[in-house]
Amino acid sequence: MSKPTPAFGFNPTDELNDLRMSAKALPLYEHVKRFITETVAPMAEKYEALGKNRVGEERWQYAPGQLELLNAAKDQAKKEGLWNFFLPDAETGEGLSNLDYAYIASELGKVPLASESMNCSAPDTGNMEVLERVGTPEQKERWLKPLLNGEIRSAYAMTEVHHASSDAKNVATSAVLDGDEWVINGEKHYISGAGSPRCKIFITMVRTSPDAPAHKQQSMILVPKDTPGVKIVGAMHVFAEDHAPHGHMHIVFDNVRVPKSNMLLGEGRGFEISQLRLGPGRIHHCMRSIGAAEKALDLMVERGISREAFGKQLAWLGGNVEIISRARIEIESMRLMVLKAAKAMDVLGNREARQWVHMVKAMVPERVCKIIDQAIQMHGALGVSQHTPLAHMYAQQRTLRLADGPDEVHHLVVGRNEIRMHEGSKEDDASMAAVFRN
Amino acid sequence: MSKPTPAFGFNPTDELNDLRMSAKALPLYEHVKRFITETVAPMAEKYEALGKNRVGEERWQYAPGQLELLNAAKDQAKKEGLWNFFLPDAETGEGLSNLDYAYIASELGKVPLASESMNCSAPDTGNMEVLERVGTPEQKERWLKPLLNGEIRSAYAMTEVHHASSDAKNVATSAVLDGDEWVINGEKHYISGAGSPRCKIFITMVRTSPDAPAHKQQSMILVPKDTPGVKIVGAMHVFAEDHAPHGHMHIVFDNVRVPKSNMLLGEGRGFEISQLRLGPGRIHHCMRSIGAAEKALDLMVERGISREAFGKQLAWLGGNVEIISRARIEIESMRLMVLKAAKAMDVLGNREARQWVHMVKAMVPERVCKIIDQAIQMHGALGVSQHTPLAHMYAQQRTLRLADGPDEVHHLVVGRNEIRMHEGSKEDDASMAAVFRN
Amino acid sequence: MSKPTPAFGFNPTDELNDLRMSAKALPLYEHVKRFITETVAPMAEKYEALGKNRVGEERWQYAPGQLELLNAAKDQAKKEGLWNFFLPDAETGEGLSNLDYAYIASELGKVPLASESMNCSAPDTGNMEVLERVGTPEQKERWLKPLLNGEIRSAYAMTEVHHASSDAKNVATSAVLDGDEWVINGEKHYISGAGSPRCKIFITMVRTSPDAPAHKQQSMILVPKDTPGVKIVGAMHVFAEDHAPHGHMHIVFDNVRVPKSNMLLGEGRGFEISQLRLGPGRIHHCMRSIGAAEKALDLMVERGISREAFGKQLAWLGGNVEIISRARIEIESMRLMVLKAAKAMDVLGNREARQWVHMVKAMVPERVCKIIDQAIQMHGALGVSQHTPLAHMYAQQRTLRLADGPDEVHHLVVGRNEIRMHEGSKEDDASMAAVFRN
Amino acid sequence: MSKPTPAFGFNPTDELNDLRMSAKALPLYEHVKRFITETVAPMAEKYEALGKNRVGEERWQYAPGQLELLNAAKDQAKKEGLWNFFLPDAETGEGLSNLDYAYIASELGKVPLASESMNCSAPDTGNMEVLERVGTPEQKERWLKPLLNGEIRSAYAMTEVHHASSDAKNVATSAVLDGDEWVINGEKHYISGAGSPRCKIFITMVRTSPDAPAHKQQSMILVPKDTPGVKIVGAMHVFAEDHAPHGHMHIVFDNVRVPKSNMLLGEGRGFEISQLRLGPGRIHHCMRSIGAAEKALDLMVERGISREAFGKQLAWLGGNVEIISRARIEIESMRLMVLKAAKAMDVLGNREARQWVHMVKAMVPERVCKIIDQAIQMHGALGVSQHTPLAHMYAQQRTLRLADGPDEVHHLVVGRNEIRMHEGSKEDDASMAAVFRN
Repeated sequence: MSKPTPAFGFNPTDELNDLRMSAKALPLYEHVKRFITETVAPMAEKYEALGKNRVGEERWQYAPGQLELLNAAKDQAKKEGLWNFFLPDAETGEGLSNLDYAYIASELGKVPLASESMNCSAPDTGNMEVLERVGTPEQKERWLKPLLNGEIRSAYAMTEVHHASSDAKNVATSAVLDGDEWVINGEKHYISGAGSPRCKIFITMVRTSPDAPAHKQQSMILVPKDTPGVKIVGAMHVFAEDHAPHGHMHIVFDNVRVPKSNMLLGEGRGFEISQLRLGPGRIHHCMRSIGAAEKALDLMVERGISREAFGKQLAWLGGNVEIISRARIEIESMRLMVLKAAKAMDVLGNREARQWVHMVKAMVPERVCKIIDQAIQMHGALGVSQHTPLAHMYAQQRTLRLADGPDEVHHLVVGRNEIRMHEGSKEDDASMAAVFRN
Repeated sequence: MSKPTPAFGFNPTDELNDLRMSAKALPLYEHVKRFITETVAPMAEKYEALGKNRVGEERWQYAPGQLELLNAAKDQAKKEGLWNFFLPDAETGEGLSNLDYAYIASELGKVPLASESMNCSAPDTGNMEVLERVGTPEQKERWLKPLLNGEIRSAYAMTEVHHASSDAKNVATSAVLDGDEWVINGEKHYISGAGSPRCKIFITMVRTSPDAPAHKQQSMILVPKDTPGVKIVGAMHVFAEDHAPHGHMHIVFDNVRVPKSNMLLGEGRGFEISQLRLGPGRIHHCMRSIGAAEKALDLMVERGISREAFGKQLAWLGGNVEIISRARIEIESMRLMVLKAAKAMDVLGNREARQWVHMVKAMVPERVCKIIDQAIQMHGALGVSQHTPLAHMYAQQRTLRLADGPDEVHHLVVGRNEIRMHEGSKEDDASMAAVFRN
Repeated sequence: MSKPTPAFGFNPTDELNDLRMSAKALPLYEHVKRFITETVAPMAEKYEALGKNRVGEERWQYAPGQLELLNAAKDQAKKEGLWNFFLPDAETGEGLSNLDYAYIASELGKVPLASESMNCSAPDTGNMEVLERVGTPEQKERWLKPLLNGEIRSAYAMTEVHHASSDAKNVATSAVLDGDEWVINGEKHYISGAGSPRCKIFITMVRTSPDAPAHKQQSMILVPKDTPGVKIVGAMHVFAEDHAPHGHMHIVFDNVRVPKSNMLLGEGRGFEISQLRLGPGRIHHCMRSIGAAEKALDLMVERGISREAFGKQLAWLGGNVEIISRARIEIESMRLMVLKAAKAMDVLGNREARQWVHMVKAMVPERVCKIIDQAIQMHGALGVSQHTPLAHMYAQQRTLRLADGPDEVHHLVVGRNEIRMHEGSKEDDASMAAVFRN
Repeated sequence: MSKPTPAFGFNPTDELNDLRMSAKALPLYEHVKRFITETVAPMAEKYEALGKNRVGEERWQYAPGQLELLNAAKDQAKKEGLWNFFLPDAETGEGLSNLDYAYIASELGKVPLASESMNCSAPDTGNMEVLERVGTPEQKERWLKPLLNGEIRSAYAMTEVHHASSDAKNVATSAVLDGDEWVINGEKHYISGAGSPRCKIFITMVRTSPDAPAHKQQSMILVPKDTPGVKIVGAMHVFAEDHAPHGHMHIVFDNVRVPKSNMLLGEGRGFEISQLRLGPGRIHHCMRSIGAAEKALDLMVERGISREAFGKQLAWLGGNVEIISRARIEIESMRLMVLKAAKAMDVLGNREARQWVHMVKAMVPERVCKIIDQAIQMHGALGVSQHTPLAHMYAQQRTLRLADGPDEVHHLVVGRNEIRMHEGSKEDDASMAAVFRN
């Protein structure tokens, strides 16, 4: 018989099953929703209009007026106290729990630029969390402070060009100590946000210790974007979008030299940091995806009741009403799973809660893709055009099925854990390769 | 934009999102689990063994010794206070909330006879709830009391042979007042439990008022099983099982006469009572289904790790580990949805919570069928045989996709509600037919 | 790039793409259809009626009158020349190609007893083919002749109780030579047809040569059912059906002695024979499944247009019309795939065509299950009862997903072959284990 | 019981089941494959390279050198006799059957520009077929001739901005006779190919006869692109691609005047022409989709064997080998269905064969989307980038699920036909609206 683990909360009175937002977070939540409606949404519309019709290289600069618009919203957010609330239990004090943040992040997922306006956008959130948790005072002063102030942005340089990065041991970008400097050589791509002129710093996964055990070979190191040898080759597209000027950049590190002190936490601890970083990052994505799914369902139903064919509203033709029902059921299921995973992180800690995080990461983007796809179908050809947000939303969610580990890897971890519970064993994630060689 | 309704609990601090079992129910929950393991499971095994090899008509009687075994367990349950706890807010006092019951019912779903041992088995639960809510003192004395004591059992005679009973207006069994008696004529089938010699009373849906508006034509009336004219034609099978002696009976009502006082609540109020009855009934089924799904996953993984082919454990062959992962994710999603629906019934009342009940009824049996089917596949031919419980479990869950409204009807109600939220309208369930004629 | 193989028929003018039945088979096909309608269907109805209400042990004998009915139909079939036409290129002369047979078998799949009435029912067909291909003159005289005459029936004893029989190397039932006799010990189950009093002979897979290479250890041997030591333990159920008196028997071989001359083809050649036997057996199942799917769609549509709810025919409610469309599309797709596989066997030979056979075996039963399941859903609770053939049809098709190799194994072979085409390699089936250990 | 129709080819010896390419088409087929490999593929690579890095308005002109490359390939094709072979039974004599073309079109679907190089690309093929079938000698001289020569290109202006164009009665663009001219007003979008400077003529669906019966109100009329009042508003995107310079244009018709003689076939016959046009158009799309699916599977397997994670080739991780198998099975099924539909058009004529065309149009793009999506998943983030053709292929296939009638409409026609067969009725397509109002 299966052996319950704390992660599954089999004690039904456990705090784990209390998925209420805290009373103290409610005003913030209401405030954020108001701020999105009143400030972000109109700003985002103007911002997008300014960016239209820009072509070629100029697309990699912000259009005149764009940053002014965005910065005004950010200043306003800061003034209203809607700032950096993504960071749980931080010394900086906001102290929003993962659960409270989950409710808010779902709202952030509905409107473009909402996250960024309140300094809660990826990949900065994860990077700030890493710096806050493991940075030295100097590293914090130099990079965390301007990030927390929204003055600069950052990138997370993880994915390798030539190796399956779902397997962390595959990191091939090397860092070799030469005197007081690490010399970095390698090639990475899909470095999101690295295209922006405002991006100043990369947290970079490198291999420092090829002779150490498999999970002690990697390190994370700070590489300022303007370091000589950092060459941005181009932008990786996502279903024909380049997301300029943010971008998902292809970068070559060619004898890039950074001071020894840029190492995070210590040599060989890269995998450890990535574990710390990935939990919240993955769940934040999924929280926002709930908001995206809500928006897609909204659009689907609106279209369904505003368009007729064969003498009936589309929503009432064929199986459409069942499609709408199934979308609602999926959304409520996913919402509860995300809330539960967030609560598990709050109550059990990121490590003990990781089964829940893997479950929602394997579950949510795939199902949200399906809902957006059905919303596209309800719109006819308009659904794939630039005149609804759906094609862009689809591209984003589809990419999430690959980012931070493809669905398959998350399923393998979840399934393996289930098997282990039956076997009564307690092996570590690190033994994934062993499992597959089994 | 969509208009939130209280049912969706958009205020995230709302009690609705607190899915913890109450502290006072925890001892009962633990007690029930212990009782199932220590008393019910061994009893059920002996009970089943006694029933083996019985053939033909004798199968419709309990085998010698069976009732003694079952009654001993029931007496023990009663003595230990594990009795009738299904009934929320009853005058009889147990007062278990739907949420608390949901946790317990999931355990009941894992072991045969667990529900009945504690007098919590369908269709008696629903029938007792109806009698408790709308019965006259005389009706309660005559029928509710022995049901609550576990002395008799009951059936719910709803489904018609010749009409789609998912559409309540289709009830054709007539009841005509003749002096002080109602004279009932008609034909029903799938009357579960009516085969048992212990079944003494049917709550019967009849049509009394053909000239009233569509939803005021039906009434519910008490028909003792031994009334002259009640003819049991035979048992409806479920994937070749007849579930004797319980049975799902085909019954003809041929000039059956019952006193006027057997009417429940009043003429023309049958649809109203059926709404009251269906909410809890549907959710109880789904709660137990969660337990069944857990058991199927348990069996799937056990088989997967205890059998080898091509030099590997089955669990690690091909896509099996992903199948296991997806089953776990579905189970946790369904569990949370069932808990949320139960909580909604507690907080909002059955009527306001009905969207949640429709969602889980449309969601749970279909997905549990899939998990059981995958467990069957992992077992090879053994999975469809009598040597695992899986084929029987599949037959039960597959039937649930048809009982108390087929999946399609629940999806149509959920989808319609979603559309209505967008349209801002508030029409009643009663207008379903209008919708489809739309 | 992929390397086309003959099996995929990339030369588009190839005979492989001519899926027409031969002109000479058409009269037989028409005759068979007429015979089924006029003779088999009414006979099957009477036959089934005679079998009703039989209970306990008597069920394992034919009911009085049953065999007379069946034998009359068989005699009639023989007289009309509708006999043994399953056997391609046989010395006995019928010479029906696999393709021609595929069209006919689809008709056989629609009506119970149609196959048996024309001596074309499993497992006899496969057993007769084995005897015809590899039997000695004595073996043919003793067993093939009465089988071809329809005087006796046979079983194929392959599946082991304690080992995954999808991996042929797992055969554990041993046969040891002792003088002029093989002494057999082991335990098998799901031996279909072994329950019938008419079943006289088992083709039995045993392990004779434990020290030979993995695929040379097994042999096939003839074991008369009445040999001392053959103990029938009981019948394996299939979703609560025991298919008495045919049955899927659990059998213990306890020091069963048969003459040395009962060996088929030679020691160590069991795997070779099983390959020969499985190709046609698998495709015959799938041919009949097409007929079953047609019947399920027929029933689904008939129900859909004869029943109303909410003021509309069921067929026009919700997504039902799309379900009907998808069923038709699946049926036509499966039909073409089965015809193509049959043609491939005719043109390329069983070995070269095996990729096609694996494809249809992986494809057809799973999809037919789905169509039958949807037909059940359209019928409401009636669909799972004994009053439609659907539950029985579902049980049969569901079992086909496990028999002769579970779906997963067929997918693994098909996928592996696809990979091999890309790799340009040509390894043998025998290396399956190597692949999984890869 | 169902009533077979000729379309389903229940006579198994029928020519309908002979899916062989004709012997006379084989040399053409082989020639086309050679031409694609030797001439088109290298040309397309250069062509694409020239188009890179073009931005803004200049993208709507061909890049210097592009047309020269393309025209050289076209001249070569013409010289080699690989020209216009899409047109069945044309006076111009090529006389390729739909079946023969189906085999060839599948090859065209694998390489960009292959269709156009041989003057077989949509929408010109459909437009040429319309002109060839129903054009006056003057219309043929003026427009068909240069189209057949590959000198100009054309567009098909059907889809309306403000109405569901899946319902042909919804056409709102009006044409009013004013003396000898039709005056056209309306708004259309997704007019594919209308962006190209080489596009000279639109076949335009207009409403001429608002008082006629529902299917006699529409007409088709020739509108030269340079007619005053034809205003190209912009390009509709497809998942962020604008397909410049081809484009899917949004066009306003503002008092556009064309001579009376530009009417095709006659007033009120637009629906009739659209039926004629859609059959071949739809099937051509599906034929090419088979080629796209083959290419996606090729890429999927190549990636699966060339990349490792956790010590194994991706193809052998988790369920990937089953995904590969299912893709192969789907491709072979779709191929056979497309061939059968093409053959049905050859043998039965477009009208009688339309059930087959609806089946493949409902079946193929949806399943090809799934295969491409799985190929994307196997590639990780690279799969959604510009460095594989997969994202572009996905966008194209996804759009096909909406073009020429969304999947849902095709399923409704197929399902309705199935129901009609059971009812024995023979109503016309024209009664679709009646059906939905049923």
